[in-house]
Amino acid sequence: MWTIREEDISDIAVGASILGSGGGGNSYHVELQLRELLREGGRVEVIPLASLGDDDLGCGISGMGAPTVGIEKLPRGDEMWQAARALEEHLGKKFKFLIIGEVGGGNALEPCVAAAHGGLPLVDADPMGRAFPELQMDTFMIYGVRPWPFALADAQGNAVVFGPVLDPKTAERLGRAATVAMGGTSSLALPVLTGREAKDFAIVGTLTLSRRIGASVRLAREAKDDIVEAIRRVVPAEELFFGKIVDVERRVVAGFNRGRVHMEGLGSCASSDLVVDIQNEYLLAWRDGEAICTVPDIISLLEEETGLPVGTESLAYGQRLRVVGIPAAEKLKTKTALRVIGPRAFGYDLDFRPLPGRIPEVL
Amino acid sequence: MWTIREEDISDIAVGASILGSGGGGNSYHVELQLRELLREGGRVEVIPLASLGDDDLGCGISGMGAPTVGIEKLPRGDEMWQAARALEEHLGKKFKFLIIGEVGGGNALEPCVAAAHGGLPLVDADPMGRAFPELQMDTFMIYGVRPWPFALADAQGNAVVFGPVLDPKTAERLGRAATVAMGGTSSLALPVLTGREAKDFAIVGTLTLSRRIGASVRLAREAKDDIVEAIRRVVPAEELFFGKIVDVERRVVAGFNRGRVHMEGLGSCASSDLVVDIQNEYLLAWRDGEAICTVPDIISLLEEETGLPVGTESLAYGQRLRVVGIPAAEKLKTKTALRVIGPRAFGYDLDFRPLPGRIPEVL
Repeated sequence: MWTIREEDISDIAVGASILGSGGGGNSYHVELQLRELLREGGRVEVIPLASLGDDDLGCGISGMGAPTVGIEKLPRGDEMWQAARALEEHLGKKFKFLIIGEVGGGNALEPCVAAAHGGLPLVDADPMGRAFPELQMDTFMIYGVRPWPFALADAQGNAVVFGPVLDPKTAERLGRAATVAMGGTSSLALPVLTGREAKDFAIVGTLTLSRRIGASVRLAREAKDDIVEAIRRVVPAEELFFGKIVDVERRVVAGFNRGRVHMEGLGSCASSDLVVDIQNEYLLAWRDGEAICTVPDIISLLEEETGLPVGTESLAYGQRLRVVGIPAAEKLKTKTALRVIGPRAFGYDLDFRPLPGRIPEVL
Repeated sequence: MWTIREEDISDIAVGASILGSGGGGNSYHVELQLRELLREGGRVEVIPLASLGDDDLGCGISGMGAPTVGIEKLPRGDEMWQAARALEEHLGKKFKFLIIGEVGGGNALEPCVAAAHGGLPLVDADPMGRAFPELQMDTFMIYGVRPWPFALADAQGNAVVFGPVLDPKTAERLGRAATVAMGGTSSLALPVLTGREAKDFAIVGTLTLSRRIGASVRLAREAKDDIVEAIRRVVPAEELFFGKIVDVERRVVAGFNRGRVHMEGLGSCASSDLVVDIQNEYLLAWRDGEAICTVPDIISLLEEETGLPVGTESLAYGQRLRVVGIPAAEKLKTKTALRVIGPRAFGYDLDFRPLPGRIPEVL
């Protein structure tokens, strides 16, 4: 068990943005919110996955929608807890824990805010180990946790409880439509699950992992050490490319950011180009037309000058970036999982080509 | 109290289609479903509005979505009851009654099917006395019944419970988005209300009124009497136009049918033309450019040959039609109501111009 301290916030934000494969949303506003909550005496207890009782009831929480919308459409602050509370009221039961829905970007910190609002412990785990664009793309849905009831809430105080729903893809379709009607982003409480299910299917220790990556990057920035090396001290990481953005195609389509970013190589990559495909997250990286990093492996784009990760919502012409690949968690690489989150699930006629290495489990 | 008999079904369908101002959806499939249910021993008890206890709890039920979609996307049969049941489960309470959400077209009969499925009495009343395109456009919403929780269900077995929601227009926006995601039509349970609220705000006796209009039209058709005269025996009705459709503009937009129908005059109307504007329902009729029937008054288009009403989903080039205007129920004509359902609420720079006469209350 540990408690989130003010100085942890930016470390978690940086680490989760590196793990987020460009997704999970910008963390700026939620960092401010969480800092203020802690200063006002709010408390976020982070408990180990293994500490859950088999029959404890909890739910996953995350944001839904297009990251570019999230920059301008500010959260109220309590909507994620309101989504969880809508489920509690619907079920007539109280939750004993909350669990991060995806550990990427701002979506790693918003559950901390929700945990403080709800006075509930936050489990040190998540079902992605990164961010994914669609609701059915997590280990809870992949390995058969029931997708309903689930709830959405927005910054205006509206809430919607879904269920029964046929299957996770239907949940995604209905939830996405409501998210678009809520203005392009919403807070999602999904799934309702037992401690047993969380322990069986979640990826362990990913909040701690985010904090450690962030701290390592912070120390390296202070010491002017190499950032990729700093990441590699915590997780396997491969530098895939170094270059400059020459074009960004990015649209808001049906509640997603979709598009691609084009880069021209610099330094040792000078004669190469790189294209990264986007659906909220960085999905595939193509170097000179060849896929060199494929979903579910993580693609992280780091600003050359600051060493900080750049989310899909913040891409801009002229940015000089280091492109880093990080292997996905093992639970994302099974045949069952790849049917939902492999390249083919995103419409590519391509098999997953795993990066070497194994991401550590923080028990 | 009366019980719906097999021979009532087509009378109700015809009467409700005449009252529906072209909306409420085609009744063909639901007539078959209800007939089958009654033959299998199903029972629909219709109870007077006045018989409700003040504290009895019930809910409104109707279909949501574009009538043209409803022709091809067949109902499963129990989804309207499932929508009501989703609310019962959400509230942890049982309903004592169901009430028709809009008495137009198929939407007058689907609640009968739901009542049979749920074993609940159906109140002889509704909050429109016709059909309207949007959820906030009924006397319950207009006069302040709380719009949430409300539920949608679809033919695949999916259900969604909404609430809290800010206001009825937000309910409409969120519900419409879910309806589109459900394929363009859905079953709606809204609002949850007490017997007191139903008695205070509903328009009384509209199921009986539909049956009487339908029966009168049936008798006139058998006797080859005048159809408009037959309608007039039950409600005030004015023949506004007689002509032939020369153009139908009709699109499915955001879960609605929108468009207009153009007619050229025949007989005594030979030198005139008529345009009727559509949003699921017939909203305004313009004769030679002048508004001669304005929402909330009812516009009914009757086939010259059969005397049967034609819904907005069934309009076709060349149809020869008699256009009939019927005054709206008094509760729709207050200042408060006209702000929600008058011409200006639909974007017209035009005041409501009431037809003469007063629709009877069937107590």
